[in-house]
Amino acid sequence: MKRTVTHLADGRELIYFDERDDAVRAAVDRRDLPPPPPASEMRFDPILDEWVAVAAHRQTRTFLPPTDECPLDPSSPSRMTEIPAYDYDVVVFENRFPSFSHRIGPPPADVLPGIVPTRPGEGRCEVVAFTSNHTGSFATLPPERVRTVVDVWADRTAELSARGEIELVFPFENRGEEIGVTLHHPHGQIYGYPFVPPRTRRMLQSAREFPGGSLFARVLEAERDAKVRVVAANDLWTAFVPAFARWPFEIHVYPHRQVPDIPALSGEERDAFVPLYLEVLQRLDGLFGVPMPYIAAWYQAPVRVDRDLAYLHLEVFSTRRAPGKLKYLAGSESAMGVFVNDVRPEQAASMLREVQL
Amino acid sequence: MKRTVTHLADGRELIYFDERDDAVRAAVDRRDLPPPPPASEMRFDPILDEWVAVAAHRQTRTFLPPTDECPLDPSSPSRMTEIPAYDYDVVVFENRFPSFSHRIGPPPADVLPGIVPTRPGEGRCEVVAFTSNHTGSFATLPPERVRTVVDVWADRTAELSARGEIELVFPFENRGEEIGVTLHHPHGQIYGYPFVPPRTRRMLQSAREFPGGSLFARVLEAERDAKVRVVAANDLWTAFVPAFARWPFEIHVYPHRQVPDIPALSGEERDAFVPLYLEVLQRLDGLFGVPMPYIAAWYQAPVRVDRDLAYLHLEVFSTRRAPGKLKYLAGSESAMGVFVNDVRPEQAASMLREVQL
Repeated sequence: MKRTVTHLADGRELIYFDERDDAVRAAVDRRDLPPPPPASEMRFDPILDEWVAVAAHRQTRTFLPPTDECPLDPSSPSRMTEIPAYDYDVVVFENRFPSFSHRIGPPPADVLPGIVPTRPGEGRCEVVAFTSNHTGSFATLPPERVRTVVDVWADRTAELSARGEIELVFPFENRGEEIGVTLHHPHGQIYGYPFVPPRTRRMLQSAREFPGGSLFARVLEAERDAKVRVVAANDLWTAFVPAFARWPFEIHVYPHRQVPDIPALSGEERDAFVPLYLEVLQRLDGLFGVPMPYIAAWYQAPVRVDRDLAYLHLEVFSTRRAPGKLKYLAGSESAMGVFVNDVRPEQAASMLREVQL
Repeated sequence: MKRTVTHLADGRELIYFDERDDAVRAAVDRRDLPPPPPASEMRFDPILDEWVAVAAHRQTRTFLPPTDECPLDPSSPSRMTEIPAYDYDVVVFENRFPSFSHRIGPPPADVLPGIVPTRPGEGRCEVVAFTSNHTGSFATLPPERVRTVVDVWADRTAELSARGEIELVFPFENRGEEIGVTLHHPHGQIYGYPFVPPRTRRMLQSAREFPGGSLFARVLEAERDAKVRVVAANDLWTAFVPAFARWPFEIHVYPHRQVPDIPALSGEERDAFVPLYLEVLQRLDGLFGVPMPYIAAWYQAPVRVDRDLAYLHLEVFSTRRAPGKLKYLAGSESAMGVFVNDVRPEQAASMLREVQL
C-alpha cells in the first residue's frame, strides 16, 4: 500500500492510499475554496455528565447532491471534486464541515459560569472514500479493497492516536438515507474525539467492575458456546446478534483475541475479517431484498487510558425492522434510554443465517 | 373531574376522565378480541449495564391506519374502536401492544446463564387519548382540556406508583410521522417501568455528586438569570433551551419549586403550566410553518428511591433542524453517545421567541 499525503485548496489534508506501489499522486486542487470553518464549541451538560458539540456551520453542509455533483467522485477535466485525482483506490480527507478539528480559536467563554463549562471542539473528522465508484456499497467492494480499508483504519487510528488532543478514534459508516446519510457514494467517517465518549466510558466501567476476567471475552465465549445467535464465524472472528440486542437487526463482530484497537490486529486477523464482514453485510442486505440502512461502529480502546480493559469490536445495526417499516427512537429510547426491540435476537440471527448468498 | 373505570372486551382497563361530573359511562365494548399478549421479556446487557425489552408481539401493531379506521376515535353505531363511548373528554387505557404489562408468565430462563439474566417485562403501558377529535394536536387543545390532562397525568402517576412492580412512571408524547408515530389522533403514552431507567439513573447520580444544593435548581436559576435562552416564563414555570441542548430545538420546562413528580404539583402550579406549555408547543409549530415532529418527556422521581434528589421537569425536543431537514442520530450519537447539534442553543431560543403567535 502506497500512502501519499497532499492538501486541498483550503489547506485540508488529503491522503491517497493506493494498492499499487507505483501510483503517482500529483493532481492539484484548483478550486477557489473559502477557509475551512473553525472547530465546534463543546459544552458540558452537568446533568447527564456529557460533552455536547455545537457545530452551527454544519447547517449548510452538502445534502444529497445530484449524482453529477457528488463530491466524493474523482475529479474530471470538467469538474473538480473533493478528490483532485481522476481515479483513486481509497482516499481519506478532512471533512469540510467538521464537528471536531484542529482549527480552533481562543477558548470560548463559559456559557453558564460555574455550571456549564465550554471548550473548543478540538479533534479531527475525516471522510474515508472506499472506492472511486459512485454506486455500490461496502458490501459490494472486492475483498482486496476491504483489506486495504482495514489497513487504512489502522493507519488513521495510529496517526490520530499520536495527536495529543485526541483521546479516542472512532471509525464508522452510516449507510442509507433512512439513517440520515447525506452522500450516497460509498464512504465512511473517522472521528478523533478530544474525550472518551459516554458509551465507551460506560462499557469500560462495566468491564472494570466485572469480577474475574474480561467481561467482553466472557460475552463472546458465551455466545460462541450458545451458537443460536451466531450469524457467521471463522477461526479468528465471530459475528453474533447479542442476547441483549437493542435494534431489530444488530450484529456484533469480535476478534477471538482481545486487542485494544485496529492497529493491534495481526495481518492474519485483518485477512480473516474481510470475508466475515462482507458476509455479514451481504446477509443484512439480503434480508428483505432492499438495501438495509445501517450504522457500523468500531469500538476501540481510548488512546491513553484503560487500554487493557477494552476489547476491539465492531457493532452493526439496522433501523429496518420489516419491509417498509423502520425502528424509530421514540420516547422510551430517546428520553429514557430504555430500548424496546420488536424482533427477538434469536429470530434475527436465524433470519440472517437463512439468507441465500 | 369524574373518573370512571371500565374494561375492554379483552379485559384491558379503560378509564374515562370526564370534565363534567354527570357523565355516564355505560358503553360496552362488544368486539371479539383475542386475549392481550403477555408482557415482553427483559434481558440485561452487562456491557452497558441496562435492561433491554424484547417485545416481539409489537411487530404486528397498528401502523398508520386510514383515518376511518383510527382506534382512538370514539365508537359509532357502525364501528367499535378502542373507546366504546360515542364521545369522550380524556381516556386512558392499557396499550393493546404493550412493552410492559402485568400479564406475565413464568420467569423466562436466563439467556446466557451467569451473564445475561432475564425477567418478565412486568409493568404497564397506557395510551392517553387527549381528545375525541381526530385532527389537531396537543398545541390546539383548549386550555381547560390541557388542565384536565395534567390531572390525568397526576392520577396515573399516583395510581401506577402504588403498584409494587413499578419503579418509575413516564408520561410522554411522540408527535409526527418523522418520529415514528403510528397513530395521528392526538394522544400520549404512559410507561410504568419495573426499574429506574438509565437516563434517570444518570441524572440522579449527577445530582447526588453535585456539591452544595440542587443541581437542577442551580441550572434553572442560572438559565433564568442569563435570560438569553429563555423561551417562555411565568411566575411559577420557566421554559428554556438548555445551554447544552443536544437537539436542534430542545426546550426544558421546569416548575420554580422543586417537586418530585406531577402529583406533588399544587393546583396553582398546574394552572400556570397550561398557558406556558401551550405557548411552547405553539412556538415550536410556528418555527417553519409546518407541524414539528417532537418528543415530549416528563422526568419524574423514581417511585421509591432518590425522591429528594429528583426535580420534576418536562423536556420537549424536535428532530427538525430546518424546513425539509431532519436531525438523525447517526454514528456519533447512536453509537458513541456524543451529540453534535447544528443549531446554537441561543439561536434556537431566539427563533422560538420571535415566532408570532
